[in-house]
Amino acid sequence: MLRRIARAYSTCGKVFPQEPVKPQLISSSVPGPLSVEANNQLGTIFDNRAAYFVTDYENSLGNYISDVDGNLLLDVYCQISSIALGYNNPSLKKTAQSKEMIDSLINRPALACFPSKNYAQILNEGILAAAPPGMSKVWTALSGSCANETAYKAAFMYQAAKERGLLDFNHEELESVMQNKFPGSSKKVILSFENGFHGRLFGSLSTTRSKPIHKLDIPAFNWPMAPFPKLKYPLNEFTQENLQEEDRCLQEFERIIKNDWEPHQIAAIIVEPVQSEGGDNHASAHFFQGLRDITLKHDILMIVDEVQTGVGASGKFWAHEHWNLTNPPDMVTFSKKFQAAGFYFSDENLQPNQPFRQFNTWCGDPSKAIIARTIYNEITQNDLVNKTAQVGNYLFPKLAKLSESYGSFFNLRGENFGTFIAWDFKHADDRNKFLFKMRQQGVNIGGCGDVSVRLRPTLLFEESHADLLVDTIEAVLKY
Amino acid sequence: MLRRIARAYSTCGKVFPQEPVKPQLISSSVPGPLSVEANNQLGTIFDNRAAYFVTDYENSLGNYISDVDGNLLLDVYCQISSIALGYNNPSLKKTAQSKEMIDSLINRPALACFPSKNYAQILNEGILAAAPPGMSKVWTALSGSCANETAYKAAFMYQAAKERGLLDFNHEELESVMQNKFPGSSKKVILSFENGFHGRLFGSLSTTRSKPIHKLDIPAFNWPMAPFPKLKYPLNEFTQENLQEEDRCLQEFERIIKNDWEPHQIAAIIVEPVQSEGGDNHASAHFFQGLRDITLKHDILMIVDEVQTGVGASGKFWAHEHWNLTNPPDMVTFSKKFQAAGFYFSDENLQPNQPFRQFNTWCGDPSKAIIARTIYNEITQNDLVNKTAQVGNYLFPKLAKLSESYGSFFNLRGENFGTFIAWDFKHADDRNKFLFKMRQQGVNIGGCGDVSVRLRPTLLFEESHADLLVDTIEAVLKY
Repeated sequence: MLRRIARAYSTCGKVFPQEPVKPQLISSSVPGPLSVEANNQLGTIFDNRAAYFVTDYENSLGNYISDVDGNLLLDVYCQISSIALGYNNPSLKKTAQSKEMIDSLINRPALACFPSKNYAQILNEGILAAAPPGMSKVWTALSGSCANETAYKAAFMYQAAKERGLLDFNHEELESVMQNKFPGSSKKVILSFENGFHGRLFGSLSTTRSKPIHKLDIPAFNWPMAPFPKLKYPLNEFTQENLQEEDRCLQEFERIIKNDWEPHQIAAIIVEPVQSEGGDNHASAHFFQGLRDITLKHDILMIVDEVQTGVGASGKFWAHEHWNLTNPPDMVTFSKKFQAAGFYFSDENLQPNQPFRQFNTWCGDPSKAIIARTIYNEITQNDLVNKTAQVGNYLFPKLAKLSESYGSFFNLRGENFGTFIAWDFKHADDRNKFLFKMRQQGVNIGGCGDVSVRLRPTLLFEESHADLLVDTIEAVLKY
Repeated sequence: MLRRIARAYSTCGKVFPQEPVKPQLISSSVPGPLSVEANNQLGTIFDNRAAYFVTDYENSLGNYISDVDGNLLLDVYCQISSIALGYNNPSLKKTAQSKEMIDSLINRPALACFPSKNYAQILNEGILAAAPPGMSKVWTALSGSCANETAYKAAFMYQAAKERGLLDFNHEELESVMQNKFPGSSKKVILSFENGFHGRLFGSLSTTRSKPIHKLDIPAFNWPMAPFPKLKYPLNEFTQENLQEEDRCLQEFERIIKNDWEPHQIAAIIVEPVQSEGGDNHASAHFFQGLRDITLKHDILMIVDEVQTGVGASGKFWAHEHWNLTNPPDMVTFSKKFQAAGFYFSDENLQPNQPFRQFNTWCGDPSKAIIARTIYNEITQNDLVNKTAQVGNYLFPKLAKLSESYGSFFNLRGENFGTFIAWDFKHADDRNKFLFKMRQQGVNIGGCGDVSVRLRPTLLFEESHADLLVDTIEAVLKY
């Protein structure tokens, strides 16, 4: 009762007055029998073997996800780090019912050829309004993977244009490119980092270094990989070791650039502020500033992949704001928490020198940009980034205390990083059992890497939810 | 007046009673001043240098597209071969306003992990209901490019699994794949055809062979290309030469398979029923049956790319139905006329042997599948495929007559192929002038290849529209 009264004054309580105060479990296990049956049905036509349960989105609300058995689970996974504003958010519902949305859904434009009259306004109000310093242009794509791949294309075209100068394409380039051969097809590469994840299409998958199962049997470009720091926790106990580890990685990064590849052969690097699929691996501002310095020195573009980290969960709108870089990155890619589509920011120099080079039929989707605009507006109007930072600061010490009490649960990370928090178990089996048991206790929670658990709640996840989460974790650890 | 009365009894007249009876031109040229101004605004933040005009979708109706100057143009380009049911179709509007749509927009699911309870039904009623014989599974992606790339991944995994048998991945594979090296990363390839277009991401672009500008400066896989027949028109005058040309291409195709690559190194071929971006190049059923026979003989998968040809415009629901293949293709990819997303059909053998291999965060988008279902239902309920076949048969001889009268306009193709009709001009300049003049006369029409014009009207394009189109073409040719 007290909790309900407190919640009435919270942002989440105002947005979702009917949100459950705790999980409600109907079936004796999750997934329940109706979920299993529905999933079997779906499995006859669609590859659904990764399904946790079949979801009743209509019955989900705020931070609670419902399955078809009627269970209501506190969701700290949120469609793999999406759902910024909670399920069935009333502002998003209003947006979905708007004439602008309906028009955009039923008349899907080929945006680069026949841009809609309101597209500039939608992009300005909802996407570019969120742009970090130095980013004046946005490219609109359809997923995180294709945001990254179109960013790679921009990087390759930019570097080639710089070498070519004012010359036009020559005959040899025009001929060889149709055979997928050099010089028309580029020998340049994108460098990514060990354990990074950047998507699953052929170019993005070539930069993904998370797990073999993501990559096996798929052809890949012979592109370079550099080490990403493996930090030790708690950070304050390993300051010196961690600094050495980051410097070791920076040195190896520069060695690869100088020794393994021709000058200017590395068009760009791509790096996540936190390697999410790869196990929620953090590095310090020192490391990222080092990357920026080295890329500038060698004339290599720096792409920051904020597909999972972007849009508020880290306690800043963009996670890379934590670095206070002296020079901004060249491109920033993003997708998930804008619940859709994929985008990259850049400055105007990254626009190819001719039209129809960064081009495709759709070039994005206005219906997704309209959703993103509402999410941006709700975040700013309700100060959700700062609130997420505060909730993270409330939650982290409680988890740290649990970690002290239960040795099975360690390497807690994400301090002062909003709710973007993670920890490890010793073995994958232990981690997987933990995730399963949490669902049986009414909390939907996800893993990453081999042994990690990651928190990815909504931006309306508040102290009351954090209390529930901590209590459930403790109950499961005790069990 | 007579035209309006006749239209009242047509499907289009019933669906769009207020559709204009002819183009309405307000500004002295297209694009008009408001369009130019709006496009300049958009250009400050988005690469829009390919724009024809800035579009007022709200004011567009049926077969007519409106720009911001208030011009209404008969649209036979339709967002590059999309917009199956016309602008602001009332059934699609109803769908866009439905609770199901609103739920899907505001709670975007990670479909493979948390499938929505109605997803099986949506896929069954709206996508698989349209499946060609032998196709029991659908994979849902987000664009034509990623439909093709996920199909390639399925092909690579299928062929590798066949070689590996019941063995698990070995240590060498698991290690090498993280370095993007063989054997974990595959040396297998996808073969595509000269002038084919299959998308613009890194894997799909490696199979795209349309124009240098699509490919320059982007790294590409060293994958094979085979010749596609160059037919002569009119077909009935060149029966023997065309047969020889197709046999030449089939022989060269088999030679490449046998001589240039290791057995089983070519995992799949991908081919369009009509090479659309590459210039609307047709081939006969004989050629495609030959491809099917040779792929079966050499144990190579056959992927048919129906991204542009699929969903009715050819006078059959799938253009490859024109071939009457003795064995169906292994996969069929599609997107545009379902106004969204991307999909591939396959049989169950093409599903990878483990979960999380064909996988990503979104795995499609229910809001797009809901749109596709309505499009499918409208097509079947209104018999739009047969009607499009009839309109094509009405239009083609009129264009043939024009081609006889005006020698500048030749190689007319697409007979008995619905409204999927195209022709050539001698030079790119002539073609481009023609397209520009058509817009000045109120018809929005598109090119492809270097010298071709392609017709891509809606499936509600009827004889009255065809008359208008023919009259306008003649007026422009005369001018």
